Formats: sequence, structure tokens, C-alpha cells
Amino acid sequence: LHRIKASGLKLRFCTNETQATRENFVKKLRAMGFDISVAEVTAPAPATCRILRERGLRPHLLVHDDLVPEFAEVDKTNPNCVVLGDAAENFTYANLNEAFRVLIGMEKPVLLSLGRGRYYKETDGLKLDVGAYMKALEYACDVQAEVVGKPAKRFFESALAEMGVPPEQAIMIGDDIVNDVGGAQRCGMRALQVRTGKYR
Amino acid sequence: LHRIKASGLKLRFCTNETQATRENFVKKLRAMGFDISVAEVTAPAPATCRILRERGLRPHLLVHDDLVPEFAEVDKTNPNCVVLGDAAENFTYANLNEAFRVLIGMEKPVLLSLGRGRYYKETDGLKLDVGAYMKALEYACDVQAEVVGKPAKRFFESALAEMGVPPEQAIMIGDDIVNDVGGAQRCGMRALQVRTGKYR
Repeated sequence: LHRIKASGLKLRFCTNETQATRENFVKKLRAMGFDISVAEVTAPAPATCRILRERGLRPHLLVHDDLVPEFAEVDKTNPNCVVLGDAAENFTYANLNEAFRVLIGMEKPVLLSLGRGRYYKETDGLKLDVGAYMKALEYACDVQAEVVGKPAKRFFESALAEMGVPPEQAIMIGDDIVNDVGGAQRCGMRALQVRTGKYR
Repeated sequence: LHRIKASGLKLRFCTNETQATRENFVKKLRAMGFDISVAEVTAPAPATCRILRERGLRPHLLVHDDLVPEFAEVDKTNPNCVVLGDAAENFTYANLNEAFRVLIGMEKPVLLSLGRGRYYKETDGLKLDVGAYMKALEYACDVQAEVVGKPAKRFFESALAEMGVPPEQAIMIGDDIVNDVGGAQRCGMRALQVRTGKYR
């Protein structure tokens, strides 16, 4: 990381983190010794806020409590879309039914999903990820979610736009063959898979 | 109903009810004045019990509390399949993760779903039905659920077998064009849609 920064190359951290604000994400990484700032992070929540603004969408949020501050500036009155993140403990029967009712009540339901992961591992075991709940709402409302976050093409395009770099001059480095490598390649970038993190 | 019974025609009540035992279902209908007994009811839970017995499956149950007695006789130790019903309030984050973990831990995951409904209406509003949660688990585990209940062909076949009647000599009467009429027709029965109940 130090060598990349010292070389003058432009750099973005592309994460699918949706259980914390960028501020907390960065705090965690800095505590681990990484030289990283909030402005260098591309994450699904701020990317979603951009989409909401551009399209005049007012979200009903079903997300993790710790992610809510990312949507502080967004008009959430009289919602005309549902934004779904990895809500973890907020994935209650009542909250799922509420999000469903908001969605099915729309003339043309709009569902934005912060990722499409199947599951992930925590210290106390495997957990269903946002993608599973996305599928549940898709099926119930007969709608196709728009996925924000890796491996969505527009997510990588958004990171490239923030740097002002064309895809062919960028390389994506990640440990996930689908979300990192595949997504970047479909966007016209080169990509490198590292055998760390969740690689096995 | 009285006229059908008086005529000597054989009769089965085919229901997708999975929030109550047949006993309670019958009790409710009898209180409404219908002449009906438990032995005349074909429902997903007993049909599932038959499948479990035939295939030596031991279920992990994610179903409504009131349905659990239907599985009283079934060996539930060391589960090798998951049985999913409309669990309603039992669709908690913890219970969904637990069912998921049981399923993903199997060499070849087996998921039996008591229906594939998208949603239904209760006095306090629309609720996600079992089909939505089925889709969530299917996606997370990359598995296809086996649906027991209408409109599954084998569900109607099971009702016919209980009566000892071939499909071409039977007629299905129901208010649901997909679950009742479509399912019965695919099974070789004739079917009649009534404009009562949820018809609109």
C-alpha cells in the first residue's frame, strides 16, 4: 500500500461493506495499520445515495443500524423504492413484511440491493447475506432488484469515475474471483486475484 | 357439500394450510357449518411426513408452532433435510440462519417446502408467504426446493391415491387459478374455478 501510494498511482478501496459507515470501516482499517481515508473508499451505500439523488428516489431502508448515517441526507418521506442491505439482526419478520408491503404497494416496484452475497462467516457461524433476502423480495413482488456494489459494472465505473481513470488503465486487486476479479473484468479492467483473505 | 356427500361421490379437501394441524383446520371448518373430518383432508404436512418416511429423511423443521404436532411421529435427530412451512413469527433471523446452516452443512442439501406462495393477506396487512423464504434458502444454498402442496402434481396424485380414483374421473374445485385449477389440470384432472374466496 505504501509503495503504491508513493509511486503516485491513483487508488480506490472498493468494498461491499454494508454493516458500517465508511467512517467506521476506515477506522477499523487504520487501527490495523492501513493508511486509508474515507475519500478513498467506494462503497455500496454512498453509490446508492448517488443513484437515489439522480433518479429522485426516496428510500424505505432495510439496512444495518450502523449504516443508517450514510443515508442521513436522503429524503425518506413517502418512499418510492426499497433499499436493502445486509441488515443482520434487523432482518426480522416484521421488518421484512414492512419492506415487502412498501414494495408491493408501488405501481412499479423499485428494489435496490447493496450486494448479492449468498452468505458469510462470522465467529458464531454462517449467516445469510443480503442476496438471500433480495431473492425473497424479488420473488414475492415479481421484481428484479438492481444490485449496487461488486460485481455490478456500474459500481466499478463509479470508482473509476471518482479517480478519473479509464478502465483499461486500471487494475483491480481482490481475493474474490466473482465479485472482485469477474466484476472488474466485465467492466474492461484488468484484475489480479490475491490468495489472502477468504481465498481458499 | 351435503349434495356431493349424499350422491356417494368420493371427496377430498385439498388445502395448502400449513399454519395449523388438520385437527384444528377441521375444527375451524366444522364451526363454520361444514361437514368435514380429518380423514378427508389432504394437506402438505402429512404429505411431507409420507415423503420423509419413504426416503428415510429426518427433518430440521422451520414451520409454524401450531403445525409441529403433525410431525410428532417423525425422527428429527441428526437432520438430513430441512422442511420449510409458513412459519410466520418463527421466521426470525436466528431461525433462518439455523435452517440455512443445517442445509449448507449437508453433502447434498434437501429442502422440502410446504407450498410456494408469494404472500397472503391477514387482517393487519400483507405477509410474505413460505415461497419467499424458500427462494432465500434456495439461493443461499444453490439448491432447488421440492414443493409439497398445491400446485405440485404429486400432491394431487396423493389425494387421488387416498381416494383410489384415477385423475380422469376426478374434478378439482377451487378459487385459485394457479394452485387449484392449473395444478389439477397438469395432473390430468378436470378443474372448476369458483368465484368465491380470494377470487377477484
